[in-house]
Amino acid sequence: MSTKSISNKTKVALVGFGTIGSGVARLLLAEGPRLARAAGIPIELAHVVDPDLKRPRNVTLPEGLLSNDLDRALGDPDVRVVIELIGGTGVAREVVLRALDAGKNVVTANKALVATHGPELFERARRVGRTIAFEAAVAGGLPVIATIGQSLTANRIESIEAILNGTCNFILTHMEQYGLDYADVLAEAQRLGYAEADPTLDVNGADATQKLAILAQMAFGATVDWRDIPRAGIDSIGLSDLLCAEMTGHRIRLIAAARRSPEGIELSVGPTLVPEDAPLADVQGAFNAVSIVGDMAGPIFLQGYGAGQNPTASAVVADVIDTIAGRTAITQAALELWSTPSREPATVRDPATIAGRFYLRVNVQKELDAAAQLSRVLAEHQTPVDSLTQYDDEDSQNLAGIVFLTGQTTEGRIAAAVQQMETLPFVHPEIVRCRVADA
Amino acid sequence: MSTKSISNKTKVALVGFGTIGSGVARLLLAEGPRLARAAGIPIELAHVVDPDLKRPRNVTLPEGLLSNDLDRALGDPDVRVVIELIGGTGVAREVVLRALDAGKNVVTANKALVATHGPELFERARRVGRTIAFEAAVAGGLPVIATIGQSLTANRIESIEAILNGTCNFILTHMEQYGLDYADVLAEAQRLGYAEADPTLDVNGADATQKLAILAQMAFGATVDWRDIPRAGIDSIGLSDLLCAEMTGHRIRLIAAARRSPEGIELSVGPTLVPEDAPLADVQGAFNAVSIVGDMAGPIFLQGYGAGQNPTASAVVADVIDTIAGRTAITQAALELWSTPSREPATVRDPATIAGRFYLRVNVQKELDAAAQLSRVLAEHQTPVDSLTQYDDEDSQNLAGIVFLTGQTTEGRIAAAVQQMETLPFVHPEIVRCRVADA
Repeated sequence: MSTKSISNKTKVALVGFGTIGSGVARLLLAEGPRLARAAGIPIELAHVVDPDLKRPRNVTLPEGLLSNDLDRALGDPDVRVVIELIGGTGVAREVVLRALDAGKNVVTANKALVATHGPELFERARRVGRTIAFEAAVAGGLPVIATIGQSLTANRIESIEAILNGTCNFILTHMEQYGLDYADVLAEAQRLGYAEADPTLDVNGADATQKLAILAQMAFGATVDWRDIPRAGIDSIGLSDLLCAEMTGHRIRLIAAARRSPEGIELSVGPTLVPEDAPLADVQGAFNAVSIVGDMAGPIFLQGYGAGQNPTASAVVADVIDTIAGRTAITQAALELWSTPSREPATVRDPATIAGRFYLRVNVQKELDAAAQLSRVLAEHQTPVDSLTQYDDEDSQNLAGIVFLTGQTTEGRIAAAVQQMETLPFVHPEIVRCRVADA
Repeated sequence: MSTKSISNKTKVALVGFGTIGSGVARLLLAEGPRLARAAGIPIELAHVVDPDLKRPRNVTLPEGLLSNDLDRALGDPDVRVVIELIGGTGVAREVVLRALDAGKNVVTANKALVATHGPELFERARRVGRTIAFEAAVAGGLPVIATIGQSLTANRIESIEAILNGTCNFILTHMEQYGLDYADVLAEAQRLGYAEADPTLDVNGADATQKLAILAQMAFGATVDWRDIPRAGIDSIGLSDLLCAEMTGHRIRLIAAARRSPEGIELSVGPTLVPEDAPLADVQGAFNAVSIVGDMAGPIFLQGYGAGQNPTASAVVADVIDTIAGRTAITQAALELWSTPSREPATVRDPATIAGRFYLRVNVQKELDAAAQLSRVLAEHQTPVDSLTQYDDEDSQNLAGIVFLTGQTTEGRIAAAVQQMETLPFVHPEIVRCRVADA
């Protein structure tokens, strides 16, 4: 696969020398003999490229390795693999395309890039006969890409339900465990480094949705713009929601879900009531977890760290080894990722038609018939009510929370019902809506 | 890798047409296009070999496929892969060696064969330039071999703790859930098909120990005769043990454990008190689960079906695809399985020196100072006592159970203490001993 395969070592270039990049560099420099055995040939970190040459990192590079000269790295004919750890979809996209055009294979941890520009990048990779490996882009150190793309190839995947954002899981489980409010836990998560200073892309579900789009491509061949996947974040979830969920035997997790149905692939991301005896309900703190159902293997559950310097470096370097050893090229030829596949292309189901049960919390100005009026709205939208709970607001005598667990309905009906509820004069924004996962 | 790689299809032969064989045959026959995409070439099931040509199976083979003629299958030059599903270590070993000598690659689900004859089989495979894939031999449909051998290659594995026998886990969790005795649950497990008519190799831990020996080779390069691994079964575990464990915040699972230590690889299989908040404590029924700690990835937890027709067929056919596509050859060249490795060979630690905490239940004829005498024995063997509980036997006024949780000691000291306790006149056999897993 390389013109240099008769050489006695393989060179790699690392572009993006931040936290993950430092972890990857340290691993490549420190574990040479072990990685050489795994790859079949010694791996030499030959270039580290970053505009910031001064910032202190927790790895010491050999003299002359770090530069801001991308051209030199891409122009080195001995470099077979370029590791992109810049992040984002701008410069990173340019670097990946240029690396492919220069004949390099690419390894990336960049979910935003793969989810947004997958079709363009993989078309280019196929055209130039190179590969793009991205295990680290979804669930960090957890081998979910390898499990779907390789270990479960004999299966038709039926469904995936996953916790793909450690920040959200830390916040929800910390609220649950210590009885704290969202804002307090978010502040603590920021203090501990589990949440960014600007946590928007984590808590609004965008990060998990990008990862789900990648899994939907891997498992179902479903090509979807991640921005078209129905998505809700956790920022509206209060402690009262966790308590209400608990009373009905559930815990709330931010779940990214993909499911095969006769009408197409069902995709959604949002806070979800998970039965308390399901493995996903036991996932605590910053862990990620993925539950995959194959028609032959049955349910498979994976849990591990989805982010962080070392777990992500573990996945990046495994991809580097797979690429050099030749497994990535074999796997990607079979997977036909983001291409016009030789099989029937998967269609994505209209989200409005996806069936399910729902949890609604409506904050209301106390009125005698508030619950009745809200129930009537649900009835008008063909949505049965399985249970209804009303409780007084702790902070105001005039306010109450009304919680519904619905029977089977559709996303579209619930959306319409919620929209209509919000026009009622006694209803306070915003109405909290969660899916209820099947037991 | 094959002289026939320019052909437009690849032939495989299946040897052993029992439950798993039927599942594999059905999958290969029913899912041709999907498997062809994954393998890069259509896969033709060309021979099914079994001495029993009459027994009904839940798959219908095309005319002429089933025979008892192994020579014909091995003599077919178009066959690239032989799937061994005979089981056991006699005929199966002969078939695998003959298949390798005939230039075939082998896929097997046979943990007893790989654990017992690994060195011989892999030496032969290397000599003839062929591969032996065995994902299905450990934890069935759960991709634990692929995770260790491929996804975690950038890691130094620190430890593995695993539930590798679904029958034992079904029995223990069923006792726990319904408050039933071992014998009653075993009978029910046999009725439901979760336990064999002769369950010896499951309940005495031999099956789990064979699988652990394979994992120890994969993860640490430790070559060990599985019969040398300290092993205890679950047949001495009573309901009272489950209750005593629960009182101290534990659940009892049959755990196969491998751990790297400065003194060598620590290996053991036996009933173990697992902290109730550990993922392994939540594993219910016939599931298998594997908890792997890598120095970079941190803890990774996998759960799924470790046996059964479809899960096992899923892993077997994934191996067939990996073998045909060429990934297996790449991976096995790097892993140097059961060979004289290019790295420092791993030593297995003397089991007697392995440190840990222990649970002991001693049934005694009631005597005033029974607990004191037993405690004195532990003290004589440098074993501190963390807690001591005495309870009356439900069936006899004259009997009592005395339960110890020890502090840190060694396997050797505990074994000696137990041996000495058994010489005391008021002690009834047999003393139940479990390891206590670290929190």
